[in-house]
Amino acid sequence: MTEPREAALKYAHENVERFLKDLKELASIPSVSTDLIHKEDIQRAANWLAARLHALGAMNVQIMPTPGHPVVYGELPTGNSKAATVLIYGHYDVQPAEPLELWESPAFEPTQRGENIYARGVSDMKGQVLVSMNAIESIVRTSQLPVNVKFLFEGEEEIGSPHLGSFIAEHKVLLASDFCLNLDAGILGADIPSITYALRGLAYFELRVRGPAHDLHSGSFGGVVHNPAQVLCELIAGMHDERGRVTLPGFYDSVRALDPEERAELARLPMGEDYFLRNSGAPALDGEEGYTPAERVGARPTLEVNGLLSGFTGEGSKTVLPATAMVKISMRLVPDQDPDQVYRQLIQYLEAKAPNTVRWEVIPMAGSPASIADRNLPSLVAFRDALQQVWGKRPVFKREGGSVPVVTQMQQLLGIDSIIGGFGLPDDGAHAPNEKLHLPTWYHGIDTIIHFFFNLKN
Amino acid sequence: MTEPREAALKYAHENVERFLKDLKELASIPSVSTDLIHKEDIQRAANWLAARLHALGAMNVQIMPTPGHPVVYGELPTGNSKAATVLIYGHYDVQPAEPLELWESPAFEPTQRGENIYARGVSDMKGQVLVSMNAIESIVRTSQLPVNVKFLFEGEEEIGSPHLGSFIAEHKVLLASDFCLNLDAGILGADIPSITYALRGLAYFELRVRGPAHDLHSGSFGGVVHNPAQVLCELIAGMHDERGRVTLPGFYDSVRALDPEERAELARLPMGEDYFLRNSGAPALDGEEGYTPAERVGARPTLEVNGLLSGFTGEGSKTVLPATAMVKISMRLVPDQDPDQVYRQLIQYLEAKAPNTVRWEVIPMAGSPASIADRNLPSLVAFRDALQQVWGKRPVFKREGGSVPVVTQMQQLLGIDSIIGGFGLPDDGAHAPNEKLHLPTWYHGIDTIIHFFFNLKN
Repeated sequence: MTEPREAALKYAHENVERFLKDLKELASIPSVSTDLIHKEDIQRAANWLAARLHALGAMNVQIMPTPGHPVVYGELPTGNSKAATVLIYGHYDVQPAEPLELWESPAFEPTQRGENIYARGVSDMKGQVLVSMNAIESIVRTSQLPVNVKFLFEGEEEIGSPHLGSFIAEHKVLLASDFCLNLDAGILGADIPSITYALRGLAYFELRVRGPAHDLHSGSFGGVVHNPAQVLCELIAGMHDERGRVTLPGFYDSVRALDPEERAELARLPMGEDYFLRNSGAPALDGEEGYTPAERVGARPTLEVNGLLSGFTGEGSKTVLPATAMVKISMRLVPDQDPDQVYRQLIQYLEAKAPNTVRWEVIPMAGSPASIADRNLPSLVAFRDALQQVWGKRPVFKREGGSVPVVTQMQQLLGIDSIIGGFGLPDDGAHAPNEKLHLPTWYHGIDTIIHFFFNLKN
Repeated sequence: MTEPREAALKYAHENVERFLKDLKELASIPSVSTDLIHKEDIQRAANWLAARLHALGAMNVQIMPTPGHPVVYGELPTGNSKAATVLIYGHYDVQPAEPLELWESPAFEPTQRGENIYARGVSDMKGQVLVSMNAIESIVRTSQLPVNVKFLFEGEEEIGSPHLGSFIAEHKVLLASDFCLNLDAGILGADIPSITYALRGLAYFELRVRGPAHDLHSGSFGGVVHNPAQVLCELIAGMHDERGRVTLPGFYDSVRALDPEERAELARLPMGEDYFLRNSGAPALDGEEGYTPAERVGARPTLEVNGLLSGFTGEGSKTVLPATAMVKISMRLVPDQDPDQVYRQLIQYLEAKAPNTVRWEVIPMAGSPASIADRNLPSLVAFRDALQQVWGKRPVFKREGGSVPVVTQMQQLLGIDSIIGGFGLPDDGAHAPNEKLHLPTWYHGIDTIIHFFFNLKN
């Protein structure tokens, strides 16, 4: 009789075509959470996952309502009362696909080209959700899970998980686990196995500036009425100094400094200038003076413009002096910054800088603090070893620039750490047109999670 | 037998309801020139005017093609070979009506409320086109025109009249006249008859900034890739200094200075701070240090943001680092600035200021120099007297902040001056939602043009 680990791996390898068919099915559902027009698609994606959990033999499968989009829950007990419990977190919602005209194949018609499959959400993170499910299927069909598994799939990650915190708080007993497996953080390269031990936090705002009561003729009023779009640009321009530092008052006061050891470790990451130039296509890099790219993206806070809108943006040349201007702006936070504090810093900045020729308001849209984990956790070690078993090399430890609010929530509400990994590549275009998933890396990912479960047993 | 002037005025007063019905008909055609979706509506508006010219007894009525929207032409000879010829200029195209949700009644369903009629284009300038036609109808139905009249109605004014210059150049003989009557410039107030003797010019550009090759995840790249929206804001912010002056290199070099006499006259205009605050609804005014509002809006050049677009601007909070950012920007020019020179100044500014982290391009969209007229022209005096006859007070002379490229073209190509007036009020919302026309002022306008024609005879 085959060793259980080998049997599961064999099953996985024999079922790749079916796994791929499933992924195409799930990725063809436009479960975009930002827009209520996709409410039914969100429900379809939730139903699809619930059905898949049933097929895996999960118990207590539920589509649980929240004030927003529902959570899909399920349990796979191992039968061994002493076994640990892993909470597998994922999200089944996706980013908007716009601008649609830039997609080479339709965003919700998964299309394979070469080693990649293209569709919105294949990498972030429907493909990652299926990595876990496929690994677990491979184990339960050939032997049995060495640990208990609980599944928690949310539908609001791409809008900042507004209801997940209260959901977790209300279902602490149901969700009680020993640690969380979160595959939403990606991998550094197809041949660079990596583990994320820190995530940046997020504070997201919409700032609206209003000048005149209505749009004006720029000839009749240009020169006497302050243009709110100009005011907005001046306010945004003032948010960075010439050294690339954010100027909100007190912004760096609570930032945890990097010690020399951590800087040395980050310097070993294959994330130099070339890496970011290649993966962004930008003509040159930029950022805060005095820090390397890997430090700037992982361990230093930033402020970004995510969207900008004012006046006439259609075809042609309307000579309007716009009444309003809007910016969507977000700060990536590091330990020990606090989103509420950043909100107050933004307000303080605007109170000091905004001229009396306009009115303004700030709408907080999402906020979560950063998180950082102990690299010697046994579950983290099991994951590290699994990566090494599949890739044949020691994985690197990295700090992730993105935000996974749920990692903080798991810590604060359930008292559990998260293993943060994943198999999405940096050039997958997670939030861009032509999002893709690299299939050889995805298959490696399934093998990794099979190994991970068996490593946990040891 | 009644004196001809009196007979024409009586006819006009008896026909106000029909005149109003005609205006509603014309204003219900959405002849928006910026958007090709309205190409047929443009044609309908042109047909409507041609039919109306025929009904007036005009000869040689033609809808003349251009590479863009057509010109409507017609002639009404007086029979007196020694009489002067007036070229009546107008435009039958209108601004886009967006944002539609801000209209209290539909933009293309003219609706009367109180003394006003609301619809896109009623003030700018379908109502003004009909002022001339109604005045002429009132004269030709009761006596005869003291001068020859030619009509030239274009369909591209709101997109900067891209084909009018070459059209005029190609039809110099057809259009040969002694002066032009252009009612596109409005009046200062319902009880403040005014004549415009100077117009600002326009230089309109779209500036596009491109950073990364595609939209990026702001978590994974924020801090290393320069955000093109931030770069754009910094470039725009740098275009004004702290004194409200435009910083493009050499921008003020060719600006004609105001002499003390003209400053004294502009100071007599009822256009103080209150006027602009009331008509804009802005909380406070702004502009270039050292100049009054009337000077800033009429006799000083400005730079305005007309539109701003980057990244994600929909509902929600997409954490994108956008690949591109766009601004529509325009400069209002005064004598003796040149639009081509301003284009070079903008390029020079960008070459000096734009960082190497982005690529950029400037698309020139419209350009025309400013113009200024002699206040003692006989035709200008006839218009001044007509205003005094109707309003019972001496009109004021003003410099208009808006641009009427055709005034410059008439001067340069046909060698004729323009009488620049009109009966649109400053609060008509010419380029804004809920554009309106004040009917009592409109009726005064018809009377004024009747007087104007008879004054020309003397």
